[in-house]
Amino acid sequence: MTSGTAPVALAGLQSGLEPRLDAVRDHLRRLISADFPLIAEVNTHLLQMQGKMFRPTLVLVANEATTPCADERVVPLASVVELIHLATLVHDDSVDHSVLRRGMPTINSLFSHQVSVIMGDYLYSRAVIELVRLGDLGPLQVLARVTNEMTVGEMRQLLALDKLAFSEQDYDLLIVAKTASLMSGACEVGALHGTARERLAMRRYGESLGMAFQIVDDLLDYEGAAAETGKPSGLDLREHKVTLPLIYALPRMSPAERAHVEDLMENPEPVEEDILAVVDAVTSRGGLIYARERAQNCCAEGEAALEAIRPGPARDTLRACLTYVLERRS
Amino acid sequence: MTSGTAPVALAGLQSGLEPRLDAVRDHLRRLISADFPLIAEVNTHLLQMQGKMFRPTLVLVANEATTPCADERVVPLASVVELIHLATLVHDDSVDHSVLRRGMPTINSLFSHQVSVIMGDYLYSRAVIELVRLGDLGPLQVLARVTNEMTVGEMRQLLALDKLAFSEQDYDLLIVAKTASLMSGACEVGALHGTARERLAMRRYGESLGMAFQIVDDLLDYEGAAAETGKPSGLDLREHKVTLPLIYALPRMSPAERAHVEDLMENPEPVEEDILAVVDAVTSRGGLIYARERAQNCCAEGEAALEAIRPGPARDTLRACLTYVLERRS
Repeated sequence: MTSGTAPVALAGLQSGLEPRLDAVRDHLRRLISADFPLIAEVNTHLLQMQGKMFRPTLVLVANEATTPCADERVVPLASVVELIHLATLVHDDSVDHSVLRRGMPTINSLFSHQVSVIMGDYLYSRAVIELVRLGDLGPLQVLARVTNEMTVGEMRQLLALDKLAFSEQDYDLLIVAKTASLMSGACEVGALHGTARERLAMRRYGESLGMAFQIVDDLLDYEGAAAETGKPSGLDLREHKVTLPLIYALPRMSPAERAHVEDLMENPEPVEEDILAVVDAVTSRGGLIYARERAQNCCAEGEAALEAIRPGPARDTLRACLTYVLERRS
Repeated sequence: MTSGTAPVALAGLQSGLEPRLDAVRDHLRRLISADFPLIAEVNTHLLQMQGKMFRPTLVLVANEATTPCADERVVPLASVVELIHLATLVHDDSVDHSVLRRGMPTINSLFSHQVSVIMGDYLYSRAVIELVRLGDLGPLQVLARVTNEMTVGEMRQLLALDKLAFSEQDYDLLIVAKTASLMSGACEVGALHGTARERLAMRRYGESLGMAFQIVDDLLDYEGAAAETGKPSGLDLREHKVTLPLIYALPRMSPAERAHVEDLMENPEPVEEDILAVVDAVTSRGGLIYARERAQNCCAEGEAALEAIRPGPARDTLRACLTYVLERRS
């Protein structure tokens, strides 16, 4: 699925969806709008930070793949999924004390920790209000469960710091909760008017896609540290985050290599040299190759789930999303 | 309503409700339970911090006052209202960097800021999951709106710091959003199976009660600074929070008194003497008397709203709640 094919660009996947993605952006703007000046100011900043709209894309395509007639509510639903994602980012950045997100200052760095906590709550409660307005308990049920899973994921993330005992199973539970749950929820919410079989298939597809997405994210952080990419790299190690490449490589390391890892984890502000030593050890012990294989396996599971979906352009796009996730470089 | 009557104790108001309040406590414990060890640990602490269950009491009594047959869902609804209150406290303490709550260490002081942000989200999403399980959009609609109003209230609170231009109107908007909205929501949710007229009456009653509750809270902080109470006092001034007694007194102060206030607001760590000077000025310029009158007026509005409710023991309890709010000393 990866080698030899032309790279899949997200913009290409989204090209037919642009009018509806524009409608999602407009709807999102309306959902978060506020009279209160400080909230309006934060909103302006949030809208400038807006990402690639991958999750709303999943809602739209999953809907197309499973629902014969276009569902009126798919645009508001896609907006709500992006809104929940935004709320999560605002709290995550505050929890992680992150300074930059998508190359722009985070809400906590630009305003304050206080404003971040309150804004996350503001955005999330707006999402619930919109779901209630849509008058259907189905999406609420999926997205409330997902939001709760994400909070448990954030707790798991706290335990992934500085913990060399963090296992591959712990890591899987972490990435399912932190990343795959919302992508799975996005796909499931898009498929709520499909058959029960389609709904389950989209949920599984989204979970596999989301796991691959996060594994590749963690991998890019290592690969970027060795090569030149637009992405800041080695950040996870700098912040003492233990991810899959290290988890795989650690028990395979020499005592000297392992000492490098322990030194880095004990150093509150590791320098470039410390990070590169660990990246080298992880690479030479096969951590990057293993992580890429795991991502490929997740994508293969995602493809298998798509067999329950009727053939057509929407299913093709869902398949292409898997390739995009594997091939992306940023 | 205040003078000459025997003091109304909350325990007295709750005496007939104890079996159902116990059911609420049990249900709440089940709602927040988690396999994840860190979350379970925080939960244990939260349950020890549990307060007076005033909001669940309002749900139960409002339900009794407006619904001929006991509603099966009133216990879970009352639990959800307390759960939303808990979630809000956890985030508020984190935003305010508070160290103590009800005489016990806050989650942010005992664990960390990170854990507080995540736990607030965890608790709130559990509340939404339970509301979805109850299968009725009505309470969700009320409580999602209320939660959003509370976030706007928290933003207003940020602007109430160090701001001597903070007006009585700003203050009213703040306390409605921060405190009255959830009490109003508790009463409305209890009355959802009553008539439209009863529902509106309970909503208004709850708002008036909540405003009185917060005004008295702010007043106790001043009164305690002069007298001996169990409550830590002068905390608002220490934290540069501008509340009703100061708002009323400030334009009536002499230049020397006003200078005391300005000095205090400029001093990051005011000492006892600074605080007492401002408390004296606020007291002598009538700030405490004015605030008590406002609280009494709110309670009179709450009583007027109760005229739409049929006479009976439940309505009597609602009336007694107003007296309790006015008379409470902690």
